[in-house]
Amino acid sequence: MTWTISRNELSQQELLNLESLFSLANGYIGVRGNFEEGYGSEMNSIRGTYLNAFHDITEINYGEKLYAFPETQQKLVNNIDAQTIEIYFEGERFSLFEGEVISFERFLYLDKGYTERVITYKTKKGQQVKLRFRRLVSFHIRELFAIELLIEPVDFTGTVKIVSKVDGDVSNYVSRNDPRVSAGHAKLLSVGNVGYDENMMFVVDKTGTSNLETACATKHQLSIGSNKVVGEVDVKEKSIDVTYSFELTESITLTKYNVYTDTLRHENDLIKKGKAIHESLATIDFNTLIDEQKQYLDEYWQVADIKIGGEEKLQEGIRFNLYHLLQSAGRDKYSNIAAKGLSGEGYEGHFFWDTEIYMIPVFLLTKPDLAKSLIVYRYSILDGAKERAKEMGHKKGALFPWRTISGSECSAYFPAGTAQYHISADIAYSTIQYYLATKDEQFMIEYGAELLIETARLWIDTGHYYHDTFRIDDVTGPDEYTCLVNNNYYTNVMAKHNLKWAEIAWNLVKEKDKAVLEELKERINVLDTEPDQWKQAAEKMYLPFDTDLGINPQDDTFLQKDVWDLKNTPKDKFPLLLHFHPLTLYRYQVCKQADTVLGHFLLEDEQSYDTIKNSYDYYEKITTHDSSLSSAIFSIMAAKVGYKEKAYDYFMESARLDLDNTHGNTKDGLHMANMGGTWMSIIHGFGGVRIKETGLSLSPSLPAQWSHYEFTLFYLQRRISVKVNKEDVTLTLLEGQDLKVKLFNDELLLNKGKDKTVKISN
Amino acid sequence: MTWTISRNELSQQELLNLESLFSLANGYIGVRGNFEEGYGSEMNSIRGTYLNAFHDITEINYGEKLYAFPETQQKLVNNIDAQTIEIYFEGERFSLFEGEVISFERFLYLDKGYTERVITYKTKKGQQVKLRFRRLVSFHIRELFAIELLIEPVDFTGTVKIVSKVDGDVSNYVSRNDPRVSAGHAKLLSVGNVGYDENMMFVVDKTGTSNLETACATKHQLSIGSNKVVGEVDVKEKSIDVTYSFELTESITLTKYNVYTDTLRHENDLIKKGKAIHESLATIDFNTLIDEQKQYLDEYWQVADIKIGGEEKLQEGIRFNLYHLLQSAGRDKYSNIAAKGLSGEGYEGHFFWDTEIYMIPVFLLTKPDLAKSLIVYRYSILDGAKERAKEMGHKKGALFPWRTISGSECSAYFPAGTAQYHISADIAYSTIQYYLATKDEQFMIEYGAELLIETARLWIDTGHYYHDTFRIDDVTGPDEYTCLVNNNYYTNVMAKHNLKWAEIAWNLVKEKDKAVLEELKERINVLDTEPDQWKQAAEKMYLPFDTDLGINPQDDTFLQKDVWDLKNTPKDKFPLLLHFHPLTLYRYQVCKQADTVLGHFLLEDEQSYDTIKNSYDYYEKITTHDSSLSSAIFSIMAAKVGYKEKAYDYFMESARLDLDNTHGNTKDGLHMANMGGTWMSIIHGFGGVRIKETGLSLSPSLPAQWSHYEFTLFYLQRRISVKVNKEDVTLTLLEGQDLKVKLFNDELLLNKGKDKTVKISN
Repeated sequence: MTWTISRNELSQQELLNLESLFSLANGYIGVRGNFEEGYGSEMNSIRGTYLNAFHDITEINYGEKLYAFPETQQKLVNNIDAQTIEIYFEGERFSLFEGEVISFERFLYLDKGYTERVITYKTKKGQQVKLRFRRLVSFHIRELFAIELLIEPVDFTGTVKIVSKVDGDVSNYVSRNDPRVSAGHAKLLSVGNVGYDENMMFVVDKTGTSNLETACATKHQLSIGSNKVVGEVDVKEKSIDVTYSFELTESITLTKYNVYTDTLRHENDLIKKGKAIHESLATIDFNTLIDEQKQYLDEYWQVADIKIGGEEKLQEGIRFNLYHLLQSAGRDKYSNIAAKGLSGEGYEGHFFWDTEIYMIPVFLLTKPDLAKSLIVYRYSILDGAKERAKEMGHKKGALFPWRTISGSECSAYFPAGTAQYHISADIAYSTIQYYLATKDEQFMIEYGAELLIETARLWIDTGHYYHDTFRIDDVTGPDEYTCLVNNNYYTNVMAKHNLKWAEIAWNLVKEKDKAVLEELKERINVLDTEPDQWKQAAEKMYLPFDTDLGINPQDDTFLQKDVWDLKNTPKDKFPLLLHFHPLTLYRYQVCKQADTVLGHFLLEDEQSYDTIKNSYDYYEKITTHDSSLSSAIFSIMAAKVGYKEKAYDYFMESARLDLDNTHGNTKDGLHMANMGGTWMSIIHGFGGVRIKETGLSLSPSLPAQWSHYEFTLFYLQRRISVKVNKEDVTLTLLEGQDLKVKLFNDELLLNKGKDKTVKISN
Repeated sequence: MTWTISRNELSQQELLNLESLFSLANGYIGVRGNFEEGYGSEMNSIRGTYLNAFHDITEINYGEKLYAFPETQQKLVNNIDAQTIEIYFEGERFSLFEGEVISFERFLYLDKGYTERVITYKTKKGQQVKLRFRRLVSFHIRELFAIELLIEPVDFTGTVKIVSKVDGDVSNYVSRNDPRVSAGHAKLLSVGNVGYDENMMFVVDKTGTSNLETACATKHQLSIGSNKVVGEVDVKEKSIDVTYSFELTESITLTKYNVYTDTLRHENDLIKKGKAIHESLATIDFNTLIDEQKQYLDEYWQVADIKIGGEEKLQEGIRFNLYHLLQSAGRDKYSNIAAKGLSGEGYEGHFFWDTEIYMIPVFLLTKPDLAKSLIVYRYSILDGAKERAKEMGHKKGALFPWRTISGSECSAYFPAGTAQYHISADIAYSTIQYYLATKDEQFMIEYGAELLIETARLWIDTGHYYHDTFRIDDVTGPDEYTCLVNNNYYTNVMAKHNLKWAEIAWNLVKEKDKAVLEELKERINVLDTEPDQWKQAAEKMYLPFDTDLGINPQDDTFLQKDVWDLKNTPKDKFPLLLHFHPLTLYRYQVCKQADTVLGHFLLEDEQSYDTIKNSYDYYEKITTHDSSLSSAIFSIMAAKVGYKEKAYDYFMESARLDLDNTHGNTKDGLHMANMGGTWMSIIHGFGGVRIKETGLSLSPSLPAQWSHYEFTLFYLQRRISVKVNKEDVTLTLLEGQDLKVKLFNDELLLNKGKDKTVKISN
């Protein structure tokens, strides 16, 4: 059952969580797992359909607005709702909350890419029917969201009425008191057009400010045996519906094909576009779609799957997370991966550093084209980042927005937003990692070098020399419980890497493509003195170190502060950010998440093993893991420093965070970064996989709870299988040319098809 | 002419500035210097009438709202407008912007307490009239704002119509892009009642949220010779007016008595209260009111006046500033001194630390009762400050709001708001200063001790021991260009003083009033261990010192930062806060205002003369004086360290800041703190006056530009005259018992009526 998520709770809270867990998406369309037939009157649902990056622009209000505070932000729009299919048995409305439910099962098939609900229902008259809903968001046809409804009369006789709707009158979800959810601006879309043409229902909506349009074009097919039933269409002001009425004598199937388009990606005539897509679908039925989903996923799982010998719940969690990651990743230059993917409205559909540090790593070694696409998105917003740097008083360089959709800064609280300058180094980091994992020189010449140069320039302009070291003042690191500090270790070490690689990339361009070199010199005016400047700043970068403790302090004054008394903080005061003023949090040594420890993971060769271990010990004691981005990193680093039990415990926290709703806010969407973190905990943590200039290295160990585990890596056009059990590790080059890798401390040459097995020394 | 401000510019910008300069107030009512007859259609005016502390409550919006961010703020309300008196000559509306103005003069009499406008006007038919407007806000009858209009027909014959209005349909001024002015919430008052009863016109307005009411009750008197003219009253929905029509044959005088009341101070039946006040005024005419103003001011100037031998413009500036200070100070427990006094809407009528550090010092040595009243206001909001401390995560103590009217925090940007914890120590400081200048033990027992204890408790809870020193992390000092720092010198040294005096005050109560002691022990639960805790923290307080530079660093890491390149910053980029993101500013050594230097002034015995001088030299180079609170302090400290020229230059910047609108925003109201600063520059700067535990000390010097200067001090029930010329200083005890003071380095015994003259050694 580890390929199938099965849940059937109907309580209010679980219902909202399950809407996120059962959401379907394909990187473009995302649909929450709402019930087609609706809910009982006392139930709340966050009914949502989203198109990645399809946004409106809303004003940001400030009690006190200071210079260069962003005035507007983008916000992911809850799109036209095509989920609704109401069903009436002899006039009695079907609902899981009203009639008698004999049985109810709900499935998400991670290997097949669709969800299913199977219900046996008894009407008030005591007659039974069986219903089955299946739905999918197609991985092949990005605009398609399809629903199939099967009704089977067990002993029911009588009339059935089905009303299927497409509703343009939609609103976003708001919550006034949680800073992680939008507090206002619910109504973003207005209906522009509703109509019916050649069997196609359509609704066109437009945004209030961003000047975008979106459309849903829907066709239905209802068959009873071989007879097609014709429905009655009702075109309303803001919605459209079709009603089918018939005597139910044998099983019937209704299929609803919803085609979503928007003016970001499609031409302006969205109705025409919808029609064209429907025409291309004419010969396809629901089962074909399901077959195609399976094909797509087979390919994915071939590399992405991780097999764990031991715990089933865990195996389920891992696959669930990897499945949702795949669903969430944008596949075009307009889109990326939102903090909640396409599964909810938390963080307003914004893209954060999560992508670079927690999600690209997964695709990098499983689906590198997707990783590239995500980096190219950053390249597409580079101009905006350069403008933002100027606005922030820099003479040169690119400052990427802390949160954004279309490229401009959407963060309204700069100490834990814009001040997180590290995002620019994070983007540089993933650019470098992509290059190291693919040696894609064309990418480096076309996109990478420029990204590295403009981000390096930011550090040159932000930092300064002091006592012959290069320092960076007043930034915020990943840990948002300590803001606006000098020489945040994480930021400095990442900036160092960024600076060093800007020079390397520049030399690569110089060597490989004179035309691009000249073009860059001209267009972004790279001075001859700059590459040396980058190199020197990297070499002179100040990385704080405390000799007494043998650790890297999080920043210049972190260790002088009082230590937060975590032991005596009541459980209901977590997450701290919802119970303490930021000033209170900033005043103490207390971390929301891995900060220095994350820096030690990403760039482990910058510090000695002892420093890394001491730091781990120190920061672990003061970290609350209030951020879902924390546990995975602590798991990886626990594995590195040999704390097997801890590595496992942290990993377990991350593996089922959403499935078990351990952070309590799964209703607002899935924690995508954490989902990436699960994969990372295994591959980078237990597997000890690293991608460096020196190549691929592994250092696997086996958690005591498992009998074995195995995973596959896609690296430099090779497919490599890794199997780990108690005694040994077996590497197999499944595809591609011979490759040298490092296993533990030794080099190993892999030849295609041959297993290489090495003992694990404990 | 140094007692009279005379200005007659009519340009748009000057008009707005002059509205602030010619504003009249009495600590309760404030009225901007608007023209009774109105303006030309193309002119903008900020028409304003304010009652100190009379406020509405508005929501604060945040793009991202975090825990304990204030949800609402108070806002000074632009009150019912009683200024308007329209005049028509033969149907032609009189305005300074339309007909022909033969002459126009405008005066503010600093010694008499009223303003006057004298105009000779030629109608379109070529006939001349003379008009004189006089107005005052009574220092004796706090509810009274009176206007007198005199019209004299020079060669005019014909009908005159006068329309006098009381308008309840008023709005606040808003400006979207200046953080120093409110950006929204213009409409705060709605009209509750308009009527006419026994010759009294009235308008009652109410606030939308704070549940307060205010009323203006107005009576008119129009006399032509001995004949009273009866007007025609028109009661409208939101306003009321009276129209007088008559043939103008000889001079006429219209007097308008406006009585303002509000439900904060008066009973609920405001109309009845207005009537009662009018009854008490029945026998008073405008000239009597003017005489009373003069009496009140004579008394004030007897102590407050400073005579400068030399520059007239400067003399004017000093008197102007001291006059407005007197006008602005609230006289009851509901009110204090707003940042702009009662002269405009800048900073929304909020009370800041300005009162304690820049304004109370003036009253302390001229009108100590007023100083006491201002401190008692703080006592009246102590409960709110204790609640705020709790909300901010403290177990004990009082955290005073950075900006407030009725006691709760109104700051919407905490890094330069709530984080300025020093305000609590500032209030403690002024409490101590008041005690030292009056030895008012009853005050200390009744209010002072509790204020000192609760503020000291805040420091105990905020700070912590580290390496055997007591440290305070993550606060903001006075310099808002560097926020959220550890061990801000100013904050630490002020907290030290606060802590030390909490123990002293507690011992005083212990010694003098056992009943109060027990009452305090009971009510605020002072533990026996606490006084020692305060004393020890004071003794162990960490005050950062840099041995290389021999200065006190502004905070732990200030000196490591890059120095802002002030020399190459274009002039139009000042004030920096309007042209740079706070993050950019925080990243550099650049100060908005005196910070460490202010700490050195307020507590000069904490550091050696050399440290103080070195620090002055260091900080002067990096201070922009973008805050109007800066120059005066630099003037005082330049005088202390012997930079006579600089002391003079800084002083001159402060002395005429508003008269010459050097900060460009006088239109939003006068810079009250700076006005106090002028007095301080002379008394504490040139005069070298200090009030310490050891008593009163002076160390006068004479600026080269002056022939001599003299001032008076009110200290420990004595009045002491100080005269300084090139050669010597003469002290005279004008009133009170013999007193020992310190002059330069020597003790001097003053006996009543006897001059003591001492040579100035250079």
